[in-house]
Amino acid sequence: MGKTCDAQVRKSGGLGSGISWRYLFMFSIMLNLSLLISRFTQDHKTTTGLGLGLGLGFGLGAQQSKRDVSPLSFTDKAPVCGKMGSTNSYCAPIIGFGDEPLINLDHGDPTMFESFWRSMGDRSNIVISGWQLMSYFSDIGNLCWFLEPEFARQIRRLHQVVGNARSEDRHIVVGTGSTQLFQAALYALSPSDASEPTSVVSAAPFYSSYPSITDYLKSGLYKWAGDAHTFVKKGPYIELVTSPNNPDGYVRKAVINRTGGILVHDLAYYWPQYTPITSQADHDLMLFTVSKSTGHAGTRIGWALVRDKEVARRMTKFIELNTIGVSKDSQLRAAKILETVSDSCGHSDDADHPAESFFEFGRQQMTKRWEQLRDAVVKSGMFSLPKFTNDFCNHAGQTIEPHPAFAWLKCEGGIEDCESFLRGHKILTRSGRHFGVDSTYVRISMLDRDETFNLFIERLSGIRK
Amino acid sequence: MGKTCDAQVRKSGGLGSGISWRYLFMFSIMLNLSLLISRFTQDHKTTTGLGLGLGLGFGLGAQQSKRDVSPLSFTDKAPVCGKMGSTNSYCAPIIGFGDEPLINLDHGDPTMFESFWRSMGDRSNIVISGWQLMSYFSDIGNLCWFLEPEFARQIRRLHQVVGNARSEDRHIVVGTGSTQLFQAALYALSPSDASEPTSVVSAAPFYSSYPSITDYLKSGLYKWAGDAHTFVKKGPYIELVTSPNNPDGYVRKAVINRTGGILVHDLAYYWPQYTPITSQADHDLMLFTVSKSTGHAGTRIGWALVRDKEVARRMTKFIELNTIGVSKDSQLRAAKILETVSDSCGHSDDADHPAESFFEFGRQQMTKRWEQLRDAVVKSGMFSLPKFTNDFCNHAGQTIEPHPAFAWLKCEGGIEDCESFLRGHKILTRSGRHFGVDSTYVRISMLDRDETFNLFIERLSGIRK
Repeated sequence: MGKTCDAQVRKSGGLGSGISWRYLFMFSIMLNLSLLISRFTQDHKTTTGLGLGLGLGFGLGAQQSKRDVSPLSFTDKAPVCGKMGSTNSYCAPIIGFGDEPLINLDHGDPTMFESFWRSMGDRSNIVISGWQLMSYFSDIGNLCWFLEPEFARQIRRLHQVVGNARSEDRHIVVGTGSTQLFQAALYALSPSDASEPTSVVSAAPFYSSYPSITDYLKSGLYKWAGDAHTFVKKGPYIELVTSPNNPDGYVRKAVINRTGGILVHDLAYYWPQYTPITSQADHDLMLFTVSKSTGHAGTRIGWALVRDKEVARRMTKFIELNTIGVSKDSQLRAAKILETVSDSCGHSDDADHPAESFFEFGRQQMTKRWEQLRDAVVKSGMFSLPKFTNDFCNHAGQTIEPHPAFAWLKCEGGIEDCESFLRGHKILTRSGRHFGVDSTYVRISMLDRDETFNLFIERLSGIRK
Repeated sequence: MGKTCDAQVRKSGGLGSGISWRYLFMFSIMLNLSLLISRFTQDHKTTTGLGLGLGLGFGLGAQQSKRDVSPLSFTDKAPVCGKMGSTNSYCAPIIGFGDEPLINLDHGDPTMFESFWRSMGDRSNIVISGWQLMSYFSDIGNLCWFLEPEFARQIRRLHQVVGNARSEDRHIVVGTGSTQLFQAALYALSPSDASEPTSVVSAAPFYSSYPSITDYLKSGLYKWAGDAHTFVKKGPYIELVTSPNNPDGYVRKAVINRTGGILVHDLAYYWPQYTPITSQADHDLMLFTVSKSTGHAGTRIGWALVRDKEVARRMTKFIELNTIGVSKDSQLRAAKILETVSDSCGHSDDADHPAESFFEFGRQQMTKRWEQLRDAVVKSGMFSLPKFTNDFCNHAGQTIEPHPAFAWLKCEGGIEDCESFLRGHKILTRSGRHFGVDSTYVRISMLDRDETFNLFIERLSGIRK
């Protein structure tokens, strides 16, 4: 709506001189900045006042989490957005101008990969006609009836090329992002006739959205029960294993290992740009998403590889009830994107146009960024970072270092609230409190565009006691 | 305002140097305003509490529905599918060969409209490059941050062209089909701190999926409570008003009208091909979907027009938690489809290529089909159909007869189970039982392809006692 009104104003003329508009704009920007700053101060106060993030339900009989940490809890930390081209909008996570603009690295928008896709030119274009893809159905012969066969084919091909997960004898369930598939898994794995909700746990630090996504509907089927390390309740449970882990990037295994436990493996980051591919994952239920594998977060497509047919059937049922399937347009686009990635790994059918390897591009970018980050941390002397072990990557054919999609930064030197400390330096991050640990930690996205990342590094390097 | 602004935006070309400052200034002013407003809202919330429907306390909870009627309960009635072209798969709802193939009209797959879209040629094509639409964000200045501005513009334009709903001063929330928006509405309208779930009701015969979509997660926020006609429980409730109604096609109003009741209007079928547009709908919360308006069920896009900002904000929150937004690819495609429909209604910018009106095409098809159906019913003598009153359609500019998307057929002559009876004649339909009434009724899709529909008519005409 803002846009249409802008147009009206533009047409109506009003102030004739360009310079007057500039002055007004600059004045307005100053007003924006003061409002934003006062708002963040306000948010911080509100957060403390409401106990947001306090009293996490770890351990026995966890309480309903009071937190509301959504996957992109940007609503109170809005990046500035604009239009770029006729069909592409973007949000610049740098707010304001001058010496100290605000840098938003709270969410994990994977815009770093945009430059690779631009370099592909029209190789990954898709064209969809008005008469195509109109029916609800994609492949009624398949258990997951809304899965486009071409997308399924490209998923299997990519896993084969990368060697990161066993897909050939698994059921594929497509979802509107892996967030929907995570809920589909909870629905599928929780008995519908149990006397109480199935406990859902994950080892801290865990993905900050797990508690709110599990509990927002107050389901009688499943309930968030906190940190897997301290979970002692008897009976069935679901343990979420994120590997490499969001937020800290470590490779993980289940921590409970008890009878009656069911595992869901979130492998969103198990790709060669982030971590060595040491073996072909072979778990019962594995989740993947294009947002982290290829950078296409706006496409809202994920997939699950599921061993058990009945579990896959129930996950399909969830998605049928939740959204009557998954958009075909997006599946076709995702298929083209995965095809381009596989082709780029030296498996191109088109010998005349060998592409740069997508994963090699990603790994080089991440290597460079992690080097910059570690340098900045040394320069500042105020922070520490996780240390990772090198390992042989079957895909790269060499020993490589992990370079996670998020930096799990710890404030040293007695700073207790790292998020607030960095906010004071106009860097927005997500506090460790949201991940089930203490507030000396923050999570920082490593996947933003170059200009944002470089500004962040510059800012971080300069922070002194 | 929407319409005039649309026109102005279309006319405006690239940004000149003076204009860009104005544009930036206006954008900045909008940001100022939104910050001021959100700050005010925040302050208001802090002092008054959450405000949304406080303290629900209504008597006995409705029983958990035992039924499991999903939107497309085809799993045990699978139509045959195949491939058509490289990117388009289809499911032929005619199963088997020979004299008596099985005809599946249980679900409402709107493939009837395919021929119109084929006739449009490449006018409604979209092309998406690999580097486009990668970010999670579409329009962070908007309350619904994942709504593509171009889609919002085309929604407002189409409602203006058709005159079926007031959109100019409403918040638009986009959803992964109207099924997701229905759940977002339940989440938004149910108080999170109530002692028991909010009752959800609809007058029978009601859409067969309402009970299962409401209850599949055993939510503590809301619960299906059956037929609105017999709902007597005190306290707050949500009444779903589907108009024209699925399954019977009648125009509807709320039946309870009690204090504490909240209405959700499902207007999926309030389009000129199905029913006369007698006035501009002006309800608090109205749901629409491309699957029924244009026939693009595979695209999984719906939209809600919402009067109250806080309700729109909570619906947005639901979609953020459920699927982290809505696929941008699909929104861009839906925008192109709606644009083509508006253009076809004599509002085309392209005077050299005036299109056939989409709604006129749809109305002619539906008129013909209903005539065929009524003839077949007379010939058979075994069935009856609803009778509708003609009314003046503001969009068509003439008095027209309703031609609903489903036929609500009743078996006469003492046949108690109409679904079984028709299955015996190899016609798959959905029993009245799933719609909250008795099994002498069945719902039959009127939107399948010509070959399926014609075979159905031929079959039905021949049924004798």
